[in-house]
Amino acid sequence: MLGNGRIRTDLALETTERFAEEHAEIRGVEVHEEYDEEKDIRTTVVKIITENGAKAMGRPQGNYITIEAPNLSAADEDYHREISEEIARHLKQLIDLEHEKSILVVGLGNQAITADSLGPHVVENLHMTRHLIREYGLKSFGRETVHRTSGIVPGVMAQTGMETSEIVQGIVAETKPDVVIAVDALAARSIRRLNRTVQITDTGIHPGSGVENHRIGLTEENLQVKVIGIGVPTVVDAATIVHDSMAHLLDALEEQEQKEFLEEMISPNLYSMFVTPKDVDETIKYLSFTISEGLNLAFSEV
Amino acid sequence: MLGNGRIRTDLALETTERFAEEHAEIRGVEVHEEYDEEKDIRTTVVKIITENGAKAMGRPQGNYITIEAPNLSAADEDYHREISEEIARHLKQLIDLEHEKSILVVGLGNQAITADSLGPHVVENLHMTRHLIREYGLKSFGRETVHRTSGIVPGVMAQTGMETSEIVQGIVAETKPDVVIAVDALAARSIRRLNRTVQITDTGIHPGSGVENHRIGLTEENLQVKVIGIGVPTVVDAATIVHDSMAHLLDALEEQEQKEFLEEMISPNLYSMFVTPKDVDETIKYLSFTISEGLNLAFSEV
Amino acid sequence: MLGNGRIRTDLALETTERFAEEHAEIRGVEVHEEYDEEKDIRTTVVKIITENGAKAMGRPQGNYITIEAPNLSAADEDYHREISEEIARHLKQLIDLEHEKSILVVGLGNQAITADSLGPHVVENLHMTRHLIREYGLKSFGRETVHRTSGIVPGVMAQTGMETSEIVQGIVAETKPDVVIAVDALAARSIRRLNRTVQITDTGIHPGSGVENHRIGLTEENLQVKVIGIGVPTVVDAATIVHDSMAHLLDALEEQEQKEFLEEMISPNLYSMFVTPKDVDETIKYLSFTISEGLNLAFSEV
Amino acid sequence: MLGNGRIRTDLALETTERFAEEHAEIRGVEVHEEYDEEKDIRTTVVKIITENGAKAMGRPQGNYITIEAPNLSAADEDYHREISEEIARHLKQLIDLEHEKSILVVGLGNQAITADSLGPHVVENLHMTRHLIREYGLKSFGRETVHRTSGIVPGVMAQTGMETSEIVQGIVAETKPDVVIAVDALAARSIRRLNRTVQITDTGIHPGSGVENHRIGLTEENLQVKVIGIGVPTVVDAATIVHDSMAHLLDALEEQEQKEFLEEMISPNLYSMFVTPKDVDETIKYLSFTISEGLNLAFSEV
Repeated sequence: MLGNGRIRTDLALETTERFAEEHAEIRGVEVHEEYDEEKDIRTTVVKIITENGAKAMGRPQGNYITIEAPNLSAADEDYHREISEEIARHLKQLIDLEHEKSILVVGLGNQAITADSLGPHVVENLHMTRHLIREYGLKSFGRETVHRTSGIVPGVMAQTGMETSEIVQGIVAETKPDVVIAVDALAARSIRRLNRTVQITDTGIHPGSGVENHRIGLTEENLQVKVIGIGVPTVVDAATIVHDSMAHLLDALEEQEQKEFLEEMISPNLYSMFVTPKDVDETIKYLSFTISEGLNLAFSEV
Repeated sequence: MLGNGRIRTDLALETTERFAEEHAEIRGVEVHEEYDEEKDIRTTVVKIITENGAKAMGRPQGNYITIEAPNLSAADEDYHREISEEIARHLKQLIDLEHEKSILVVGLGNQAITADSLGPHVVENLHMTRHLIREYGLKSFGRETVHRTSGIVPGVMAQTGMETSEIVQGIVAETKPDVVIAVDALAARSIRRLNRTVQITDTGIHPGSGVENHRIGLTEENLQVKVIGIGVPTVVDAATIVHDSMAHLLDALEEQEQKEFLEEMISPNLYSMFVTPKDVDETIKYLSFTISEGLNLAFSEV
Repeated sequence: MLGNGRIRTDLALETTERFAEEHAEIRGVEVHEEYDEEKDIRTTVVKIITENGAKAMGRPQGNYITIEAPNLSAADEDYHREISEEIARHLKQLIDLEHEKSILVVGLGNQAITADSLGPHVVENLHMTRHLIREYGLKSFGRETVHRTSGIVPGVMAQTGMETSEIVQGIVAETKPDVVIAVDALAARSIRRLNRTVQITDTGIHPGSGVENHRIGLTEENLQVKVIGIGVPTVVDAATIVHDSMAHLLDALEEQEQKEFLEEMISPNLYSMFVTPKDVDETIKYLSFTISEGLNLAFSEV
Repeated sequence: MLGNGRIRTDLALETTERFAEEHAEIRGVEVHEEYDEEKDIRTTVVKIITENGAKAMGRPQGNYITIEAPNLSAADEDYHREISEEIARHLKQLIDLEHEKSILVVGLGNQAITADSLGPHVVENLHMTRHLIREYGLKSFGRETVHRTSGIVPGVMAQTGMETSEIVQGIVAETKPDVVIAVDALAARSIRRLNRTVQITDTGIHPGSGVENHRIGLTEENLQVKVIGIGVPTVVDAATIVHDSMAHLLDALEEQEQKEFLEEMISPNLYSMFVTPKDVDETIKYLSFTISEGLNLAFSEV
């Protein structure tokens, strides 16, 4: 199958599309789609139910919610509140927010690389309450239920000398949150989705995902608490662009031949390049705001 | 001919290479190449001598010096002083620095877009002397000849509501420099050249060049003073990458057919994307330092 | 009189207060005060009418509008829209915006010094229209009257080697605006006013004002067009704080004695220090937004 | 005694000076001073030996090394290498670097407040080796002894909802370093020392120190590993400046009277202000480099 080699996507939705292109059915995987015409928001839920489905999809069992909103890639006075609300709605389904929760938000990625700085920016904009509740108690909030929110920007391994998972494990062991939400910039396969798509999953963050590939994931298995992953694709590997463009040309060739041919054609230099919209600096700023408002909404309304 | 349409490069050197690929000769254009093995610096001087040559090359008559240094794309303790010196050497040939000159350095590009922020960063690192000479006189420098350096970061039209050329014309008319040096981030055709190549030209900056295309150039004709352009390619149009990759595949097709086919294949989305190395944020920082040191060297040693 | 030496304020209001403290009357100066209790905004208009008044006040004849809003120093969801509206209201009185105007906004100050970066940030947030009108005409706006807005961040002399006034004069000569609005960070005498006060004046910007003192002003005399100055005090000279605190102690001493004593007491080191709130980085961000929205409002509503 | 109330300094040296002013001797405290005339570096070691000494000094028993270098407050081509070397020399005395050590550097402070961002900047410039040794082994370094360096920027409580000490405790428990080095921006009493003084101590970081006071310290007691604190004073409380200036005036008054009088005089507003040099943004950049080079030197030369 095409793209099992170096071509990658962090979006479960794009993996299902590849099967669809080949008119293949994936057993153990369910796909539901909803479209809100007024807001122009398409929400697709991919459920990977069986071990077989997980194998075919190349990702673990669980729910993958993809919110596609073409408007998201344009700046907006109220920072796309309708998307923030959609994010909040799904979080409330994945986490039981009827009861008080202690939530640690982890902003993954490299602040020094604009396209990878989504996670750190999201944590910057969050309202933290954990320290206030510890100091002044719940009464100071004038609400009955208040979630304890905390957040960390762990940095990347080249900056810290530590695996991100080591840092998060240490902090989770010390502060004992009920749930971890990890926010990350993702790589997509299609440039059409860049900065227009939010993926929410209850399977956490997996090795090999993210703009800078993670070596070790942040999962319930590692952290011993539930882990929600939220991501937005901000880059496409440059090699993917070339690969996909050429693949159409090559439909006539035999599969194995094709793959070899493509690998020969694509310059090794390309593998350290990525494709990104010209306005990525500006975009990351308001995207991070849209997501943090989604989190703020989810945690403040009980 | 391929690429006369949307595929573009700001490097004169890459235009000559396209002719070379087709084993074509360009009348009215001379190319001289030098290679310093020890420093691994290749310097190519392209001289466009006749009107015919200018037409074939798609750029005005004049000298285009290209300094290629593979090491330039890696961080370096002394910020690649050998390249700074090479830049200084060529500037001294293009500007008569034996006699005192008043020099205005213009940092073109958009500070808010990392890949386009080379020019502003270069101006930031320059040593300005014009105001000091006006206030304290030449004696305060303890040297016989001191060049009057000044610099401006004009911003881009969307930020200022003015053409960059209007701003620079106004300042040139008011402060009357002998020469303008305009520094800009460029688009290349080959990713191999990104952040590894410095182009110096005595023809200034031309419409349609730069990461964000300039609408009106900065040339001797517009400004009434000599204009030197210095540029480093920091991006490749994403469409160029795909185009070039596919072109090899298509050698068998007729030229016209080929062009139409390619234009159909390349997604319109791609035209607002660019390809850039992952470490572009870090790279712009030290590249700008290497260039400003080149300028500082040229202007301080008489 | 106290403070005629090194102690300075850029706020006309504070100068009138010094006279008031001494129960002195200033001939040739009128002061009108208004207070909006609901919004907690106090607006004071100081009119310097005669040459004598100008001499006593140490600033040129003209109108000085001071908007004091204690809430302004706290972050706010809608960026203090009520202040933006108050700024817009006064601008419409100072500039005849009934008829189409071409307006150049100049963002004074040093981007590299947080407390001095108000002007550059304001220009960043402005909606520029001049280039759009030139390219697409007025029709594209769907309004009858559209003002032509443009903006420039000239930098400071140490960065450019040029007087700010030279740069602005050149651009004004080239682009011929009807009015210049210069925005600047100011020094106050009272820490109580820091980041809580906006001063608007039709006398422009004068030598010796601003966080980094300007050497040459931006005035109608220099630029040959009307100049409005807008400023917010973001620092107090450290020497001023000490001076004012001690002055109370010293009321018993003779005036001359007092002055000498104070000058002896205040460490020369203090003169390169300033006093600033801990949250100045955050504050500058939203203050600049409040002011640019004031300008955007003034220029978009006809 | 003056200043036991709100007036504070994070420099042990300044506390000894206050005693000296009063010609008092402090039992249980030893002070040794060295001066390198050529480099103009003064190094003072304050040793607090007894419990009594600790009480008198208001800080725990241990060694406090203060490096004073007037030149440090000016930018310098090689980033004050002589100070980096002095820092490295003292670190080697405090930590047994003859044997391989695993070292976690913690960059304390708030990145969003320039004057408080020294710690984060230091960690940014450090060479991390821990992850490289884990992946490629010691051989890849071509040296016999290689220290395992790692680093973290934990942020401040308002940003994370967690005590800094919780975050660091978690990471220390997970990654088990032999020693923690905590770098922080400090408050001084004298503006003369701002950005010119480096304090190194083997007692860690204590509650109530730092630009933003820490609530809980980073000490061997809390972390169960040795903790070295490195700090540079970057601010003086505005109240301190006024207090100290007035204190001289008031020598004649009775002590208790004096204290009350001063507290009345100093405006409560002043307590949220600090005094800082105008060029603090630029200064933090190169100071952090000088310190991180000190650390890099200490850890790379065995």
